[in-house]
Amino acid sequence: MRGDRVLLSHGSGSKASHELVAELFLPAFSNPYLDQLNDQAVLEADGLRLAYTTDSYVVDPIFFPGGDIGKLAVCGTVNDLAMSGATPLYLSAGFIIEEGFPIDKLRTVIGSMKQAAEEANVKIVAGDTKVVGKGNADELFINTSGIGIISKDIDISGSGAKAGDKVIISGSIGDHGIAVLSRREGLEFDVPIVSDCAPLNALVADMLSVTRNIHCLRDPTRGGLATILNELASQSNAGILIEETKIPVKDAIKGACELLGYDPLYVANEGKLVAIVPAEDASQVLAKMRENKYGRDAEIIGEVIAEPRRVLLKTAIGGTRIVDMLAGELLPRIC
Amino acid sequence: MRGDRVLLSHGSGSKASHELVAELFLPAFSNPYLDQLNDQAVLEADGLRLAYTTDSYVVDPIFFPGGDIGKLAVCGTVNDLAMSGATPLYLSAGFIIEEGFPIDKLRTVIGSMKQAAEEANVKIVAGDTKVVGKGNADELFINTSGIGIISKDIDISGSGAKAGDKVIISGSIGDHGIAVLSRREGLEFDVPIVSDCAPLNALVADMLSVTRNIHCLRDPTRGGLATILNELASQSNAGILIEETKIPVKDAIKGACELLGYDPLYVANEGKLVAIVPAEDASQVLAKMRENKYGRDAEIIGEVIAEPRRVLLKTAIGGTRIVDMLAGELLPRIC
Repeated sequence: MRGDRVLLSHGSGSKASHELVAELFLPAFSNPYLDQLNDQAVLEADGLRLAYTTDSYVVDPIFFPGGDIGKLAVCGTVNDLAMSGATPLYLSAGFIIEEGFPIDKLRTVIGSMKQAAEEANVKIVAGDTKVVGKGNADELFINTSGIGIISKDIDISGSGAKAGDKVIISGSIGDHGIAVLSRREGLEFDVPIVSDCAPLNALVADMLSVTRNIHCLRDPTRGGLATILNELASQSNAGILIEETKIPVKDAIKGACELLGYDPLYVANEGKLVAIVPAEDASQVLAKMRENKYGRDAEIIGEVIAEPRRVLLKTAIGGTRIVDMLAGELLPRIC
Repeated sequence: MRGDRVLLSHGSGSKASHELVAELFLPAFSNPYLDQLNDQAVLEADGLRLAYTTDSYVVDPIFFPGGDIGKLAVCGTVNDLAMSGATPLYLSAGFIIEEGFPIDKLRTVIGSMKQAAEEANVKIVAGDTKVVGKGNADELFINTSGIGIISKDIDISGSGAKAGDKVIISGSIGDHGIAVLSRREGLEFDVPIVSDCAPLNALVADMLSVTRNIHCLRDPTRGGLATILNELASQSNAGILIEETKIPVKDAIKGACELLGYDPLYVANEGKLVAIVPAEDASQVLAKMRENKYGRDAEIIGEVIAEPRRVLLKTAIGGTRIVDMLAGELLPRIC
């Protein structure tokens, strides 16, 4: 690993993050569950199939258009569970609070968690609170972990993509990252930009009601659509070809990205999913997704290819370019 | 709740912590699992009984005599699971790292986690890493959550104590808190003081091999023995009478506490448990505990009483005084 200190890029979901995991965490903790490198572990416990995941949330600022750190902490973990096809059931919540943090703000964050948990139909069953001195944390960090149950006839994994499969995105990309950034930097846009933060378990349940034959599901959070497509291609030993003109991006997000020099493909989402499904099921799955409010703008954006084992983008003007994983740190503390 | 800002005492396991939970978290998240206020939730999932828990670790300093934040994060969560009588199986680990933290130190902490997980026979199956800017966290915080399975013939809970039951402590108290404090303050003692940080699941398994009839188990971490006895008395609507002369405290800890003005009853432990068992099983359980290296110094320290519903201490000179829950913050960031 390059360097002898932890950098912001080690936490950005970028290549550096993947390096840190591959060189430090995996060799130490290696086991068949962790080694799969999915966003959730699929465990066997006394014949039951459990999904299990954790995420810490350090978003800055903790309140942003469309949500706050509490909503994010619940939705993020619900979504990581749902991406295995699991029904999310139980969440834990661990709070690290900076001394002097206003109780009122904490109450608001807890209210957001309650509301998100109710929408997602999950229970927060275990918790912990730590307080550190002023200057030893930045306001509030929340860790959530979650448990879900996976039906035995479901087999969704990052390694399941096959050449010919279709790639579906559930809606427009870049909203969360730009919403957080705009609040952090005090930017105002003509059209308000709002985070897409939402629980996607009902959308996944809808999709699974059409067919159990879904190969991959993943939510394009840190590192954005480009990074998670690279993860899926790598885990599946395949390539992915997407078409720029098919990828939904709101005009306001396009404008903000142009202004700020960001590529929406790398900007974090918190209420979107990518599905990789057999070609014969794609249109039916797509139609069902569009009936759900969180899948209204779903689109088929491309397909899985055997070679080359890269992510390729057919651009609007007809060229094809390689889309790599996020390289450095784009937007620290986006979730 | 008094005051409008979060104070260090809200995270100390003290009365203020209990107030924060009772007034903010419970009303929002209320459900039958959380409301039991045990250190772990006991869940039903498709007929399986699961134990589930979470804790964030913010110990300062992260390396201390007898352990580090990594060992603590694994042992603490293993112990919270074991205190329900569960067999701990799977852990998650979420890291919040301050930018610039040395990779070497991270490697050491991960190595400690690996070693503790191996001793406890648990797998770390899910992880997450976030990095925040310099000055936005204090070196390294770790959250762990854990899942265990509970056999159907085990029913251990904070509310299970009955008048006449015996109270057993697995060994001497105060070691962890004083070890961390001594390193933090740069204190040197004639006899080195070392944290008792250890996984207790094998000790609990030994105890359960003698009898399934264990009413309560709890590890006296934040708030110390005094606070958790108060929790158990309150949850069980009973009183507890303990004898000062029976409570094992090492001479070095006694000396350090006298010097520093601490009462060992309130100092955190990370490798001790309190068991409340029917009188007829107590001596057999005690004998079995003493065969385990983590229970070698176990003692019966008192019994459960019907009235008064307080924790009472029979002092060395023959008086009896009320032992209350920890009131303020004794030692911030002790775990």
